[in-house]
Amino acid sequence: MKPLSPTDQLFLWLEKRQQPMHVGGLQLFSFPDDAPDDYVAQLAEQLRQHSQVTAPFDRRLDTRLAQPVWVHDEHLDLEHHFRFEALPTPGRIRELLTFVSAEHSHLMDRERPLWEFHLIEGLRDRQFALYIKVHHALMDGVSAMRMGQRMLSTDPSERNMPPIWDLPLGGRGETDDRATLWRSIAHLLGESGKQLGTLPTVAREILRTVNEARKNPAYDSIFHAPRSILNQKITGSRRFAAQSYGMERIRQVCQAFGATVNDVVMAMCASALRTYLMNQDALPDKPLIAMVPVSLHRDDSAEGNQVGIILASLGTDLIDPVARLMHIHQDVKLAKDRYAKMSSEEVINYTALILAPAAFHLLTGMAPKWQTFNVVISNVPGPKETRYWNGARLEGMYPVSIAMDRLALNMTLTSYRDQVEFGLIGCRRTLPSLQRMLDYLEDGLVELERAASI
Amino acid sequence: MKPLSPTDQLFLWLEKRQQPMHVGGLQLFSFPDDAPDDYVAQLAEQLRQHSQVTAPFDRRLDTRLAQPVWVHDEHLDLEHHFRFEALPTPGRIRELLTFVSAEHSHLMDRERPLWEFHLIEGLRDRQFALYIKVHHALMDGVSAMRMGQRMLSTDPSERNMPPIWDLPLGGRGETDDRATLWRSIAHLLGESGKQLGTLPTVAREILRTVNEARKNPAYDSIFHAPRSILNQKITGSRRFAAQSYGMERIRQVCQAFGATVNDVVMAMCASALRTYLMNQDALPDKPLIAMVPVSLHRDDSAEGNQVGIILASLGTDLIDPVARLMHIHQDVKLAKDRYAKMSSEEVINYTALILAPAAFHLLTGMAPKWQTFNVVISNVPGPKETRYWNGARLEGMYPVSIAMDRLALNMTLTSYRDQVEFGLIGCRRTLPSLQRMLDYLEDGLVELERAASI
Repeated sequence: MKPLSPTDQLFLWLEKRQQPMHVGGLQLFSFPDDAPDDYVAQLAEQLRQHSQVTAPFDRRLDTRLAQPVWVHDEHLDLEHHFRFEALPTPGRIRELLTFVSAEHSHLMDRERPLWEFHLIEGLRDRQFALYIKVHHALMDGVSAMRMGQRMLSTDPSERNMPPIWDLPLGGRGETDDRATLWRSIAHLLGESGKQLGTLPTVAREILRTVNEARKNPAYDSIFHAPRSILNQKITGSRRFAAQSYGMERIRQVCQAFGATVNDVVMAMCASALRTYLMNQDALPDKPLIAMVPVSLHRDDSAEGNQVGIILASLGTDLIDPVARLMHIHQDVKLAKDRYAKMSSEEVINYTALILAPAAFHLLTGMAPKWQTFNVVISNVPGPKETRYWNGARLEGMYPVSIAMDRLALNMTLTSYRDQVEFGLIGCRRTLPSLQRMLDYLEDGLVELERAASI
Repeated sequence: MKPLSPTDQLFLWLEKRQQPMHVGGLQLFSFPDDAPDDYVAQLAEQLRQHSQVTAPFDRRLDTRLAQPVWVHDEHLDLEHHFRFEALPTPGRIRELLTFVSAEHSHLMDRERPLWEFHLIEGLRDRQFALYIKVHHALMDGVSAMRMGQRMLSTDPSERNMPPIWDLPLGGRGETDDRATLWRSIAHLLGESGKQLGTLPTVAREILRTVNEARKNPAYDSIFHAPRSILNQKITGSRRFAAQSYGMERIRQVCQAFGATVNDVVMAMCASALRTYLMNQDALPDKPLIAMVPVSLHRDDSAEGNQVGIILASLGTDLIDPVARLMHIHQDVKLAKDRYAKMSSEEVINYTALILAPAAFHLLTGMAPKWQTFNVVISNVPGPKETRYWNGARLEGMYPVSIAMDRLALNMTLTSYRDQVEFGLIGCRRTLPSLQRMLDYLEDGLVELERAASI
């Protein structure tokens, strides 16, 4: 029996039919060279033999003394968690994304351990996929991605590798100090000791703090995001879109303009958002503001890996792609410089204020008076070397994150080998034809390449 | 804009994560003889062309003056409703049932029209399947099954047949006076005019009526069902099991013992439940009671097709299968005779009392003091002639009904050609290994055949 932390309780509390609070990861593999045609079915048969389920995958929710706790599930039904599934003809990436869109829309069953592992056959060109889904109360997105990587090896000849639910315990369940939206919101709510029963009080407190901060010119700049269709109430169905873009192309653009990889990636997002919103006839006059969680690495102490959140203008009002990139570059630099001058205490307060309107809305359901940001863009580093699972080569890995009321789109990126891997998750009704963003991201890179004459 | 009837509101009100209120139907087809291997993919492409969606499939929920209403969905996204999917290797009926079990566990998205149409490829032996899912607030189970049949033809050469969402309107949305659990519960709640806001009052009223009825010896006999694992709280995941049994075999047993088809089918259910519960070490000493909705056909007036509900002992305490069959035969006859002596008003009151404990639990969430029945067994007549859809022959059709708190198993049957089609839906956690019931149903038929020396 293990009590849930206040952060983990928060995810259960925020969850509703139209706002499931699970994260996912999609991994795309190639068959080993010598694999038979029924390779994936054989793999499924092997995986079914792993009937032992180790922590935390054996945990289900229960209540003790009115407090939510994790307990060992005595009746774990592996068939519920491990699912062997197939894509319909013609088995393109398009069918895979449709599949993940539908699965990621489904709420999980709280009476069971909150994870699912989908092995997917039927992809063309001797490929297959894994879609792993974990409730954020069980594991945060970064930990889940790391867990998905721990299952893999750099050795293509290794076989008999266990699935995530049967991995040896070492290093699993470690606390992760990386910056996340949630960790910051939990901090804002006063993670140390406060019960979720006091949420209305906390919400009032947030409101009071925000009102005071707005009188302070130093803080006023964080309440300037425009209204947009990205910030409406969402429905329960999702569209997932994912694609890899060559890191080498992005690096060449960086060199041409003296920008960082992160700047160029954000410029791609900015360009894609601009095109998408123009096509929806919904581009705000004022530039969209992105919220970007960053790790601050201030010192080597236990608190060294401090939570930071950057608000950066995406310059979506600017027509010239190069001007937009430079605008982002400047704005990110400014935000980072601001943090450099802050004490740890000031960082915490500043971060809390950035998140306050979103937290206020999440806690009360009321539309926030202020919009501090329009979209979340997260970048989580991934492995540089080629990975294998039982001889199958990992070709790509894409994060599948959470869309929320007033934050209908989440753009999460990771890196793998020489690729930047984009995973976009959005409300399929609020944001129609979201999959077109993949082309617009490519267009955003091409327009910078052209400007640099690459 | 169309206000929801109180019955339809009831389904929305009763729905929760672990108790979705949708019904489904599974149809199994053979390819036409001349069909190419990619027949199902071609069919999917044709179906995608049917972008017109007619009533009631174009309706989504909305609220007007605090009342739920159906409105036309201006942003209907056919890709959300029509889904082309595939079974994994080896594509047996087992994989199909696993697929339907998972899909039937998923809550529907209330921001959209509450239906889904799944075209499923990847079945062996040139077969494919349709799984149609409709929220009970939009259409009841009988109407949904009838709609699924209206899509079909008796003519194997007919082509270009539209899917259910693009059928001509004729006869659709007709009210259906057949006996259903829900219609009776709605009646109990006072369908005419009562708002759902008064539910706690209604629940108290039910309680009072039940307490009075228990003092009346004439009614006391309806509160005698034993406690069993079938009557626990359920979780959100389902197991669906379905199989066809030859009508000719059942008819021979009928002749041997002077029983009706319904008696023999109920004896099969009784035998299967007895074996299943014994294997779970959970067979009650007292016989299980089945609730069986029946049509009474009292006269030819508009009220002629009156709702009736039979409570019949399944004789699960009896070891001898023939004694069990004769016990059921007697008990059903007794129940029907009781109805024959009742006035219409008495039928309504009696039915209401049978349902009262279940309704009380549904409305209050409190465990009922009395168990009037343990399991629902419904039998809905189906077509006698072979049906086709665009040349593909319908091989079997299986109802997928609703499991509820305290009613963890629902056994719904229909008939098609010379087959009796069983569809069992249950909570997969409360009732583990439910799929074994299919073998136990077969065993239940075989033991009667042996006893009759067939």
